Amino acid sequence: MPILRLKDFFSTRKDPFYHQIKSLLKFSPKSLEYYKRAFIHRSLNRRDINGIAINYERLEFLGDSILSSIISSYLFKNIPDGSEGYLTQMRSKIVSRNHLNELGSELNLINFVQSNIADENHGENIHGNLFEALIGAIFLDKGYPYCKKFIFQNVIIPHVDLERLKNKIISYKSLFIEWCQKNKKEYEYYTFEDNGNEPIKHFGVKLSVDNKVVAKARETSKKKAEEKASKRAFFMFQEEILKDKQN
Amino acid sequence: MPILRLKDFFSTRKDPFYHQIKSLLKFSPKSLEYYKRAFIHRSLNRRDINGIAINYERLEFLGDSILSSIISSYLFKNIPDGSEGYLTQMRSKIVSRNHLNELGSELNLINFVQSNIADENHGENIHGNLFEALIGAIFLDKGYPYCKKFIFQNVIIPHVDLERLKNKIISYKSLFIEWCQKNKKEYEYYTFEDNGNEPIKHFGVKLSVDNKVVAKARETSKKKAEEKASKRAFFMFQEEILKDKQN
Repeated sequence: MPILRLKDFFSTRKDPFYHQIKSLLKFSPKSLEYYKRAFIHRSLNRRDINGIAINYERLEFLGDSILSSIISSYLFKNIPDGSEGYLTQMRSKIVSRNHLNELGSELNLINFVQSNIADENHGENIHGNLFEALIGAIFLDKGYPYCKKFIFQNVIIPHVDLERLKNKIISYKSLFIEWCQKNKKEYEYYTFEDNGNEPIKHFGVKLSVDNKVVAKARETSKKKAEEKASKRAFFMFQEEILKDKQN
Repeated sequence: MPILRLKDFFSTRKDPFYHQIKSLLKFSPKSLEYYKRAFIHRSLNRRDINGIAINYERLEFLGDSILSSIISSYLFKNIPDGSEGYLTQMRSKIVSRNHLNELGSELNLINFVQSNIADENHGENIHGNLFEALIGAIFLDKGYPYCKKFIFQNVIIPHVDLERLKNKIISYKSLFIEWCQKNKKEYEYYTFEDNGNEPIKHFGVKLSVDNKVVAKARETSKKKAEEKASKRAFFMFQEEILKDKQN
Protein backbone atom coordinates (compact mmCIF):
# COMPACT_ATOMS: atom_id res chain seq x y z
CA MET A 1 0.00 0.00 0.00
CA PRO A 2 1.49 3.38 -0.94
CA ILE A 3 2.56 5.78 1.80
CA LEU A 4 0.69 9.05 1.52
CA ARG A 5 2.91 12.12 1.76
CA LEU A 6 1.65 15.54 2.82
CA LYS A 7 2.23 16.91 -0.68
CA ASP A 8 0.18 14.09 -2.23
CA PHE A 9 -2.50 14.65 0.36
CA PHE A 10 -3.12 18.19 -0.81
CA SER A 11 -2.82 17.50 -4.52
CA THR A 12 -5.26 14.59 -4.18
CA ARG A 13 -7.87 16.84 -2.60
CA LYS A 14 -7.52 19.42 -5.37
CA ASP A 15 -8.52 16.83 -7.96
CA PRO A 16 -12.28 17.11 -8.71
CA PHE A 17 -12.36 13.31 -9.08
CA TYR A 18 -11.51 13.04 -5.36
CA HIS A 19 -14.80 14.68 -4.42
CA GLN A 20 -16.84 12.66 -6.88
CA ILE A 21 -15.39 9.38 -5.62
CA LYS A 22 -15.75 10.44 -2.01
CA SER A 23 -19.44 11.14 -2.45
CA LEU A 24 -19.88 7.77 -4.17
CA LEU A 25 -17.98 5.82 -1.49
CA LYS A 26 -19.22 7.81 1.51
CA PHE A 27 -15.66 7.70 2.87
CA SER A 28 -12.38 9.34 1.82
CA PRO A 29 -10.26 7.59 -0.79
CA LYS A 30 -6.53 7.57 -0.08
CA SER A 31 -4.93 6.97 -3.45
CA LEU A 32 -6.98 8.11 -6.44
CA GLU A 33 -4.96 6.07 -8.92
CA TYR A 34 -6.81 2.85 -8.13
CA TYR A 35 -10.20 4.46 -8.69
CA LYS A 36 -9.09 6.12 -11.90
CA ARG A 37 -8.03 2.77 -13.25
CA ALA A 38 -11.37 1.25 -12.24
CA PHE A 39 -13.03 3.35 -14.92
CA ILE A 40 -10.61 2.96 -17.84
CA HIS A 41 -12.13 0.81 -20.57
CA ARG A 42 -9.91 -1.39 -22.70
CA SER A 43 -11.05 0.46 -25.85
CA LEU A 44 -8.74 3.35 -24.85
CA ASN A 45 -5.88 0.90 -25.38
CA ARG A 46 -3.83 2.60 -22.70
CA ARG A 47 -0.48 1.04 -21.72
CA ASP A 48 2.21 1.75 -19.13
CA ILE A 49 5.92 2.17 -19.93
CA ASN A 50 6.38 -1.62 -19.90
CA GLY A 51 3.62 -2.09 -22.45
CA ILE A 52 1.23 -3.53 -19.86
CA ALA A 53 -2.43 -2.76 -20.56
CA ILE A 54 -4.04 -0.25 -18.19
CA ASN A 55 -7.77 -0.83 -17.85
CA TYR A 56 -10.25 -2.05 -15.27
CA GLU A 57 -10.33 -5.74 -16.18
CA ARG A 58 -7.79 -6.94 -13.64
CA LEU A 59 -9.57 -4.98 -10.93
CA GLU A 60 -12.78 -6.77 -11.92
CA PHE A 61 -11.09 -10.12 -11.22
CA LEU A 62 -10.03 -8.91 -7.79
CA GLY A 63 -13.33 -7.19 -6.92
CA ASP A 64 -15.42 -10.17 -7.94
CA SER A 65 -13.53 -12.41 -5.54
CA ILE A 66 -13.61 -9.94 -2.62
CA LEU A 67 -17.34 -9.33 -3.14
CA SER A 68 -18.01 -13.04 -3.14
CA SER A 69 -16.11 -13.58 0.13
CA ILE A 70 -17.92 -10.74 1.89
CA ILE A 71 -21.31 -12.00 0.74
CA SER A 72 -20.34 -15.53 1.85
CA SER A 73 -19.44 -14.31 5.30
CA TYR A 74 -22.71 -12.33 5.54
CA LEU A 75 -24.77 -15.35 4.51
CA PHE A 76 -22.89 -17.68 6.85
CA LYS A 77 -23.66 -15.42 9.81
CA ASN A 78 -27.25 -14.57 8.86
CA ILE A 79 -28.57 -17.96 7.77
CA PRO A 80 -27.42 -20.15 10.66
CA ASP A 81 -29.59 -23.06 9.55
CA GLY A 82 -28.63 -22.98 5.85
CA SER A 83 -26.70 -25.93 4.44
CA GLU A 84 -23.59 -25.45 2.34
CA GLY A 85 -25.64 -25.99 -0.82
CA TYR A 86 -28.29 -23.49 0.23
CA LEU A 87 -25.71 -20.84 1.07
CA THR A 88 -24.07 -21.38 -2.32
CA GLN A 89 -27.41 -20.93 -4.08
CA MET A 90 -28.18 -17.76 -2.18
CA ARG A 91 -24.77 -16.35 -2.99
CA SER A 92 -25.23 -17.03 -6.73
CA LYS A 93 -28.44 -15.06 -6.63
CA ILE A 94 -26.80 -12.04 -5.00
CA VAL A 95 -23.70 -11.98 -7.21
CA SER A 96 -25.51 -12.88 -10.43
CA ARG A 97 -24.55 -10.91 -13.52
CA ASN A 98 -28.03 -9.35 -13.66
CA HIS A 99 -27.93 -8.23 -10.08
CA LEU A 100 -24.45 -6.73 -10.39
CA ASN A 101 -25.57 -4.88 -13.51
CA GLU A 102 -28.45 -3.40 -11.57
CA LEU A 103 -26.14 -2.32 -8.75
CA GLY A 104 -23.62 -0.69 -11.07
CA SER A 105 -26.36 0.97 -13.01
CA GLU A 106 -28.03 2.35 -9.91
CA LEU A 107 -24.76 3.97 -8.82
CA ASN A 108 -24.43 5.45 -12.33
CA LEU A 109 -20.88 4.17 -12.55
CA ILE A 110 -20.99 4.52 -16.32
CA ASN A 111 -20.83 8.30 -15.86
CA PHE A 112 -17.21 7.90 -14.78
CA VAL A 113 -16.10 5.56 -17.52
CA GLN A 114 -13.41 6.60 -19.98
CA SER A 115 -13.94 4.75 -23.21
CA ASN A 116 -13.74 5.08 -26.97
CA ILE A 117 -17.16 3.48 -27.25
CA ALA A 118 -20.39 5.39 -26.73
CA ASP A 119 -22.19 4.54 -23.45
CA GLU A 120 -25.20 3.08 -25.25
CA ASN A 121 -23.01 0.67 -27.22
CA HIS A 122 -21.35 -0.90 -24.20
CA GLY A 123 -23.93 -3.57 -23.48
CA GLU A 124 -25.52 -4.34 -20.13
CA ASN A 125 -22.55 -6.05 -18.51
CA ILE A 126 -20.45 -2.93 -18.25
CA HIS A 127 -22.46 -1.85 -15.20
CA GLY A 128 -21.64 -4.98 -13.23
CA ASN A 129 -18.05 -4.99 -14.45
CA LEU A 130 -17.51 -1.44 -13.23
CA PHE A 131 -19.09 -2.34 -9.93
CA GLU A 132 -16.66 -5.23 -9.45
CA ALA A 133 -13.70 -3.09 -10.54
CA LEU A 134 -14.67 -0.41 -8.03
CA ILE A 135 -14.65 -2.99 -5.25
CA GLY A 136 -11.19 -4.10 -6.39
CA ALA A 137 -10.03 -0.49 -6.19
CA ILE A 138 -11.47 -0.01 -2.70
CA PHE A 139 -9.72 -3.19 -1.57
CA LEU A 140 -6.33 -2.01 -2.83
CA ASP A 141 -6.78 1.50 -1.48
CA LYS A 142 -8.41 0.90 1.89
CA GLY A 143 -8.40 -2.84 2.57
CA TYR A 144 -10.97 -5.47 3.45
CA PRO A 145 -12.95 -3.59 6.18
CA TYR A 146 -13.79 -0.70 3.85
CA CYS A 147 -14.88 -3.10 1.12
CA LYS A 148 -17.17 -4.66 3.65
CA LYS A 149 -18.57 -1.26 4.59
CA PHE A 150 -19.17 -0.33 0.95
CA ILE A 151 -20.82 -3.67 0.17
CA PHE A 152 -23.09 -3.43 3.19
CA GLN A 153 -24.12 0.10 2.25
CA ASN A 154 -24.71 -0.59 -1.41
CA VAL A 155 -25.61 -4.25 -1.69
CA ILE A 156 -26.66 -5.91 1.52
CA ILE A 157 -28.68 -3.23 3.29
CA PRO A 158 -30.65 -1.92 0.29
CA HIS A 159 -30.92 -5.09 -1.81
CA VAL A 160 -30.57 -8.32 0.10
CA ASP A 161 -33.88 -9.59 1.32
CA LEU A 162 -33.13 -13.19 2.30
CA GLU A 163 -36.79 -14.19 2.32
CA ARG A 164 -37.48 -12.88 -1.16
CA LEU A 165 -34.23 -14.32 -2.56
CA LYS A 166 -35.19 -17.80 -1.42
CA ASN A 167 -37.84 -18.04 -4.13
CA LYS A 168 -35.89 -16.53 -7.00
CA ILE A 169 -35.00 -18.93 -9.82
CA ILE A 170 -31.49 -18.18 -10.92
CA SER A 171 -30.75 -21.08 -13.24
CA TYR A 172 -33.49 -22.83 -15.12
CA LYS A 173 -30.89 -25.32 -16.27
CA SER A 174 -30.02 -26.52 -12.75
CA LEU A 175 -33.66 -26.56 -11.76
CA PHE A 176 -34.56 -28.63 -14.81
CA ILE A 177 -31.67 -31.07 -14.39
CA GLU A 178 -32.48 -31.50 -10.70
CA TRP A 179 -36.06 -32.34 -11.60
CA CYS A 180 -34.98 -34.83 -14.29
CA GLN A 181 -32.57 -36.56 -11.92
CA LYS A 182 -35.10 -36.73 -9.12
CA ASN A 183 -37.68 -38.26 -11.46
CA LYS A 184 -35.22 -40.60 -13.22
CA LYS A 185 -35.76 -38.93 -16.56
CA GLU A 186 -32.87 -39.14 -19.00
CA TYR A 187 -31.99 -35.70 -20.32
CA GLU A 188 -29.56 -34.53 -22.94
CA TYR A 189 -28.38 -31.09 -24.06
CA TYR A 190 -27.24 -31.41 -27.65
CA THR A 191 -25.27 -28.27 -28.50
CA PHE A 192 -23.94 -27.34 -31.92
CA GLU A 193 -22.58 -24.31 -33.71
CA ASP A 194 -25.27 -22.68 -35.80
CA ASN A 195 -24.20 -19.28 -37.10
CA GLY A 196 -26.90 -19.02 -39.74
CA ASN A 197 -26.41 -15.85 -41.75
CA GLU A 198 -25.19 -13.86 -38.80
CA PRO A 199 -21.67 -12.44 -38.45
CA ILE A 200 -21.31 -13.46 -34.77
CA LYS A 201 -20.97 -17.05 -33.62
CA HIS A 202 -24.25 -18.66 -32.53
CA PHE A 203 -25.06 -21.92 -30.84
CA GLY A 204 -28.10 -24.10 -31.13
CA VAL A 205 -29.31 -26.44 -28.42
CA LYS A 206 -31.75 -29.31 -28.57
CA LEU A 207 -32.87 -30.42 -25.15
CA SER A 208 -34.34 -33.87 -25.01
CA VAL A 209 -36.00 -35.77 -22.21
CA ASP A 210 -36.24 -39.54 -22.50
CA ASN A 211 -34.98 -39.29 -26.08
CA LYS A 212 -37.66 -36.82 -27.20
CA VAL A 213 -36.70 -33.24 -28.06
CA VAL A 214 -38.73 -30.98 -25.75
CA ALA A 215 -37.16 -27.58 -26.37
CA LYS A 216 -34.80 -25.83 -28.74
CA ALA A 217 -32.98 -22.52 -28.48
CA ARG A 218 -30.35 -20.48 -30.26
CA GLU A 219 -28.08 -17.88 -28.66
CA THR A 220 -24.64 -16.27 -28.86
CA SER A 221 -23.11 -18.60 -26.30
CA LYS A 222 -23.54 -22.25 -25.44
CA LYS A 223 -24.44 -21.32 -21.87
CA LYS A 224 -27.10 -18.80 -22.88
CA ALA A 225 -28.63 -21.21 -25.39
CA GLU A 226 -28.82 -23.98 -22.79
CA GLU A 227 -30.41 -21.66 -20.25
CA LYS A 228 -32.98 -20.48 -22.80
CA ALA A 229 -33.89 -24.04 -23.81
CA SER A 230 -34.13 -25.00 -20.13
CA LYS A 231 -36.45 -22.08 -19.44
CA ARG A 232 -38.68 -23.18 -22.32
CA ALA A 233 -38.69 -26.74 -21.03
CA PHE A 234 -39.40 -25.43 -17.52
CA PHE A 235 -42.55 -23.73 -18.69
CA MET A 236 -43.66 -26.91 -20.47
CA PHE A 237 -43.31 -28.98 -17.28
CA GLN A 238 -43.94 -26.13 -14.83
CA GLU A 239 -46.83 -27.70 -13.00
CA GLU A 240 -45.01 -30.99 -12.36
CA ILE A 241 -41.75 -29.24 -11.41
CA LEU A 242 -43.32 -26.86 -8.91
CA LYS A 243 -45.42 -29.62 -7.37
CA ASP A 244 -42.19 -31.53 -6.94
CA LYS A 245 -40.43 -28.58 -5.29
CA GLN A 246 -43.18 -28.31 -2.68
CA ASN A 247 -42.88 -31.94 -1.63
CA MET B 1 -17.09 -12.28 17.60
CA PRO B 2 -17.31 -13.67 21.15
CA ILE B 3 -15.75 -11.70 24.00
CA LEU B 4 -13.14 -13.75 25.81
CA ARG B 5 -13.46 -13.71 29.58
CA LEU B 6 -10.56 -14.46 31.93
CA LYS B 7 -12.25 -17.67 33.06
CA ASP B 8 -12.62 -18.86 29.47
CA PHE B 9 -9.04 -17.90 28.80
CA PHE B 10 -7.74 -20.36 31.38
CA SER B 11 -10.17 -23.15 30.59
CA THR B 12 -9.34 -22.82 26.88
CA ARG B 13 -5.64 -23.30 27.59
CA LYS B 14 -6.28 -26.37 29.69
CA ASP B 15 -7.88 -28.11 26.72
CA PRO B 16 -5.31 -30.34 24.95
CA PHE B 17 -6.97 -29.40 21.64
CA TYR B 18 -5.82 -25.79 22.22
CA HIS B 19 -2.18 -26.83 22.01
CA GLN B 20 -2.71 -29.07 18.99
CA ILE B 21 -4.48 -26.32 17.08
CA LYS B 22 -1.92 -23.73 18.13
CA SER B 23 0.92 -25.84 16.78
CA LEU B 24 -0.99 -26.33 13.53
CA LEU B 25 -1.82 -22.64 13.10
CA LYS B 26 1.46 -21.24 14.45
CA PHE B 27 -0.58 -18.63 16.31
CA SER B 28 -2.95 -18.76 19.30
CA PRO B 29 -6.60 -19.55 18.66
CA LYS B 30 -9.08 -17.43 20.63
CA SER B 31 -12.26 -19.47 20.62
CA LEU B 32 -11.80 -23.22 20.25
CA GLU B 33 -15.43 -23.85 19.32
CA TYR B 34 -14.90 -22.84 15.69
CA TYR B 35 -11.97 -25.22 15.28
CA LYS B 36 -13.80 -28.06 16.96
CA ARG B 37 -16.65 -27.66 14.51
CA ALA B 38 -14.20 -27.62 11.60
CA PHE B 39 -13.47 -31.29 12.28
CA ILE B 40 -16.97 -32.66 12.91
CA HIS B 41 -18.07 -34.89 10.06
CA ARG B 42 -21.75 -35.07 9.11
CA SER B 43 -21.75 -38.83 9.82
CA LEU B 44 -21.84 -38.03 13.56
CA ASN B 45 -25.26 -36.51 12.88
CA ARG B 46 -24.75 -33.96 15.65
CA ARG B 47 -27.42 -31.28 16.13
CA ASP B 48 -27.83 -28.23 18.36
CA ILE B 49 -30.88 -27.56 20.55
CA ASN B 50 -32.75 -26.07 17.57
CA GLY B 51 -32.15 -29.20 15.51
CA ILE B 52 -29.59 -27.46 13.30
CA ALA B 53 -26.85 -29.78 12.01
CA ILE B 54 -23.41 -29.25 13.53
CA ASN B 55 -20.66 -30.25 11.15
CA TYR B 56 -17.93 -28.64 9.08
CA GLU B 57 -19.82 -28.22 5.81
CA ARG B 58 -20.94 -24.62 6.34
CA LEU B 59 -17.38 -23.69 7.34
CA GLU B 60 -16.19 -25.22 4.07
CA PHE B 61 -18.46 -22.83 2.15
CA LEU B 62 -17.00 -19.88 4.04
CA GLY B 63 -13.37 -21.04 3.89
CA ASP B 64 -13.51 -21.75 0.18
CA SER B 65 -14.59 -18.21 -0.52
CA ILE B 66 -12.04 -16.57 1.80
CA LEU B 67 -9.24 -18.70 0.37
CA SER B 68 -10.22 -17.72 -3.14
CA SER B 69 -10.19 -14.00 -2.32
CA ILE B 70 -6.77 -14.18 -0.66
CA ILE B 71 -5.29 -16.09 -3.59
CA SER B 72 -6.88 -13.57 -6.00
CA SER B 73 -5.30 -10.68 -4.17
CA TYR B 74 -1.92 -12.45 -4.13
CA LEU B 75 -2.08 -13.15 -7.87
CA PHE B 76 -3.24 -9.62 -8.66
CA LYS B 77 -0.22 -8.17 -6.87
CA ASN B 78 2.33 -10.70 -8.07
CA ILE B 79 1.43 -11.02 -11.73
CA PRO B 80 1.16 -7.37 -12.75
CA ASP B 81 1.08 -8.20 -16.45
CA GLY B 82 -1.53 -11.01 -16.24
CA SER B 83 -4.90 -10.45 -17.89
CA GLU B 84 -8.14 -11.15 -16.07
CA GLY B 85 -8.42 -14.50 -17.90
CA TYR B 86 -4.87 -15.49 -17.03
CA LEU B 87 -5.34 -14.62 -13.34
CA THR B 88 -8.54 -16.68 -13.30
CA GLN B 89 -6.72 -19.67 -14.79
CA MET B 90 -3.88 -19.41 -12.28
CA ARG B 91 -6.34 -19.20 -9.41
CA SER B 92 -8.17 -22.35 -10.57
CA LYS B 93 -4.90 -24.22 -10.53
CA ILE B 94 -4.11 -23.17 -6.96
CA VAL B 95 -7.57 -23.84 -5.52
CA SER B 96 -8.21 -27.01 -7.54
CA ARG B 97 -9.75 -29.92 -5.65
CA ASN B 98 -6.55 -31.95 -6.11
CA HIS B 99 -4.33 -29.23 -4.79
CA LEU B 100 -6.53 -28.60 -1.75
CA ASN B 101 -6.54 -32.33 -1.04
CA GLU B 102 -2.76 -32.32 -1.08
CA LEU B 103 -2.63 -29.36 1.30
CA GLY B 104 -5.07 -30.87 3.78
CA SER B 105 -3.33 -34.20 3.60
CA GLU B 106 0.08 -32.66 4.19
CA LEU B 107 -1.19 -30.98 7.36
CA ASN B 108 -2.64 -34.33 8.47
CA LEU B 109 -5.97 -32.68 9.19
CA ILE B 110 -7.68 -36.05 9.06
CA ASN B 111 -6.05 -36.86 12.41
CA PHE B 112 -8.40 -34.35 14.04
CA VAL B 113 -11.60 -35.49 12.35
CA GLN B 114 -14.49 -36.83 14.38
CA SER B 115 -16.49 -39.19 12.25
CA ASN B 116 -18.44 -42.42 12.26
CA ILE B 117 -16.64 -43.49 9.11
CA ALA B 118 -13.15 -44.98 9.15
CA ASP B 119 -10.45 -42.63 7.79
CA GLU B 120 -9.67 -44.86 4.83
CA ASN B 121 -13.31 -44.88 3.72
CA HIS B 122 -13.64 -41.10 3.51
CA GLY B 123 -12.37 -40.63 -0.01
CA GLU B 124 -9.77 -38.14 -1.18
CA ASN B 125 -11.86 -34.99 -0.95
CA ILE B 126 -12.07 -34.98 2.80
CA HIS B 127 -8.54 -33.55 2.99
CA GLY B 128 -9.43 -30.50 0.92
CA ASN B 129 -12.78 -30.08 2.65
CA LEU B 130 -11.12 -30.02 6.07
CA PHE B 131 -8.58 -27.54 4.80
CA GLU B 132 -11.35 -25.19 3.63
CA ALA B 133 -13.30 -25.65 6.87
CA LEU B 134 -10.20 -24.80 8.89
CA ILE B 135 -9.81 -21.54 6.96
CA GLY B 136 -13.47 -20.77 7.68
CA ALA B 137 -12.80 -21.34 11.39
CA ILE B 138 -9.72 -19.10 11.38
CA PHE B 139 -11.75 -16.37 9.67
CA LEU B 140 -14.49 -16.49 12.30
CA ASP B 141 -12.04 -16.70 15.19
CA LYS B 142 -9.32 -14.28 14.16
CA GLY B 143 -10.48 -12.43 11.03
CA TYR B 144 -9.12 -11.83 7.56
CA PRO B 145 -5.48 -10.91 8.39
CA TYR B 146 -4.88 -14.21 10.21
CA CYS B 147 -6.40 -16.18 7.34
CA LYS B 148 -4.00 -14.40 5.06
CA LYS B 149 -1.10 -15.30 7.34
CA PHE B 150 -2.14 -18.97 7.47
CA ILE B 151 -2.62 -19.17 3.71
CA PHE B 152 0.74 -17.58 3.04
CA GLN B 153 2.47 -19.98 5.44
CA ASN B 154 0.74 -23.11 4.20
CA VAL B 155 -0.19 -22.48 0.59
CA ILE B 156 1.61 -19.61 -1.07
CA ILE B 157 5.13 -19.80 0.35
CA PRO B 158 5.60 -23.60 0.18
CA HIS B 159 3.45 -24.43 -2.85
CA VAL B 160 2.87 -21.57 -5.24
CA ASP B 161 5.51 -21.43 -7.92
CA LEU B 162 4.00 -19.11 -10.51
CA GLU B 163 6.38 -20.23 -13.24
CA ARG B 164 5.63 -23.91 -12.78
CA LEU B 165 1.89 -23.33 -12.46
CA LYS B 166 1.79 -21.61 -15.82
CA ASN B 167 2.33 -24.92 -17.59
CA LYS B 168 0.04 -27.11 -15.50
CA ILE B 169 -3.02 -28.50 -17.27
CA ILE B 170 -5.92 -28.26 -14.91
CA SER B 171 -8.83 -29.17 -17.11
CA TYR B 172 -8.40 -31.44 -20.10
CA LYS B 173 -12.01 -30.68 -20.97
CA SER B 174 -11.46 -26.92 -21.39
CA LEU B 175 -8.20 -27.52 -23.23
CA PHE B 176 -9.89 -29.94 -25.59
CA ILE B 177 -12.91 -27.72 -26.23
CA GLU B 178 -10.69 -24.72 -26.82
CA TRP B 179 -8.74 -26.70 -29.41
CA CYS B 180 -11.94 -27.91 -31.13
CA GLN B 181 -13.34 -24.40 -31.29
CA LYS B 182 -10.11 -22.93 -32.60
CA ASN B 183 -9.94 -25.57 -35.31
CA LYS B 184 -13.65 -25.46 -36.19
CA LYS B 185 -14.17 -29.05 -35.15
CA GLU B 186 -17.66 -29.96 -33.99
CA TYR B 187 -17.53 -31.74 -30.64
CA GLU B 188 -20.16 -33.37 -28.51
CA TYR B 189 -20.16 -34.85 -25.00
CA TYR B 190 -22.92 -37.41 -24.87
CA THR B 191 -23.53 -38.27 -21.21
CA PHE B 192 -25.82 -40.98 -19.89
CA GLU B 193 -26.43 -42.84 -16.68
CA ASP B 194 -24.71 -46.20 -16.71
CA ASN B 195 -24.72 -47.87 -13.31
CA GLY B 196 -23.86 -51.33 -14.57
CA ASN B 197 -23.88 -53.77 -11.68
CA GLU B 198 -22.52 -51.26 -9.21
CA PRO B 199 -24.41 -49.95 -6.19
CA ILE B 200 -23.30 -46.32 -6.73
CA LYS B 201 -24.53 -44.17 -9.61
CA HIS B 202 -22.19 -44.09 -12.60
CA PHE B 203 -22.12 -42.02 -15.75
CA GLY B 204 -20.88 -42.88 -19.17
CA VAL B 205 -19.63 -40.33 -21.68
CA LYS B 206 -19.03 -40.63 -25.39
CA LEU B 207 -16.97 -37.77 -26.74
CA SER B 208 -17.26 -37.29 -30.47
CA VAL B 209 -15.42 -34.97 -32.82
CA ASP B 210 -16.97 -34.26 -36.20
CA ASN B 211 -19.58 -36.93 -35.50
CA LYS B 212 -17.02 -39.66 -34.78
CA VAL B 213 -16.67 -41.06 -31.25
CA VAL B 214 -13.02 -40.50 -30.24
CA ALA B 215 -13.10 -41.37 -26.53
CA LYS B 216 -15.31 -43.00 -23.95
CA ALA B 217 -15.19 -42.96 -20.16
CA ARG B 218 -17.20 -44.03 -17.15
CA GLU B 219 -17.04 -42.47 -13.70
CA THR B 220 -19.07 -41.72 -10.57
CA SER B 221 -19.98 -38.21 -11.69
CA LYS B 222 -20.79 -36.61 -15.01
CA LYS B 223 -17.98 -34.12 -14.52
CA LYS B 224 -15.36 -36.77 -13.74
CA ALA B 225 -16.44 -38.89 -16.71
CA GLU B 226 -16.20 -35.91 -19.06
CA GLU B 227 -12.77 -35.00 -17.76
CA LYS B 228 -11.54 -38.58 -18.17
CA ALA B 229 -12.85 -38.81 -21.74
CA SER B 230 -11.28 -35.43 -22.50
CA LYS B 231 -7.93 -36.59 -21.14
CA ARG B 232 -8.10 -39.69 -23.35
CA ALA B 233 -8.97 -37.54 -26.34
CA PHE B 234 -6.17 -35.15 -25.43
CA PHE B 235 -3.60 -37.92 -25.62
CA MET B 236 -4.99 -39.01 -29.01
CA PHE B 237 -4.56 -35.52 -30.45
CA GLN B 238 -1.68 -34.44 -28.21
CA GLU B 239 0.76 -33.54 -30.94
CA GLU B 240 -1.69 -31.32 -32.80
CA ILE B 241 -2.97 -29.68 -29.60
CA LEU B 242 0.44 -28.82 -28.23
CA LYS B 243 1.63 -27.54 -31.60
CA ASP B 244 -1.43 -25.33 -31.59
CA LYS B 245 -0.71 -24.01 -28.08
CA GLN B 246 2.77 -22.92 -29.11
CA ASN B 247 1.55 -20.88 -32.07
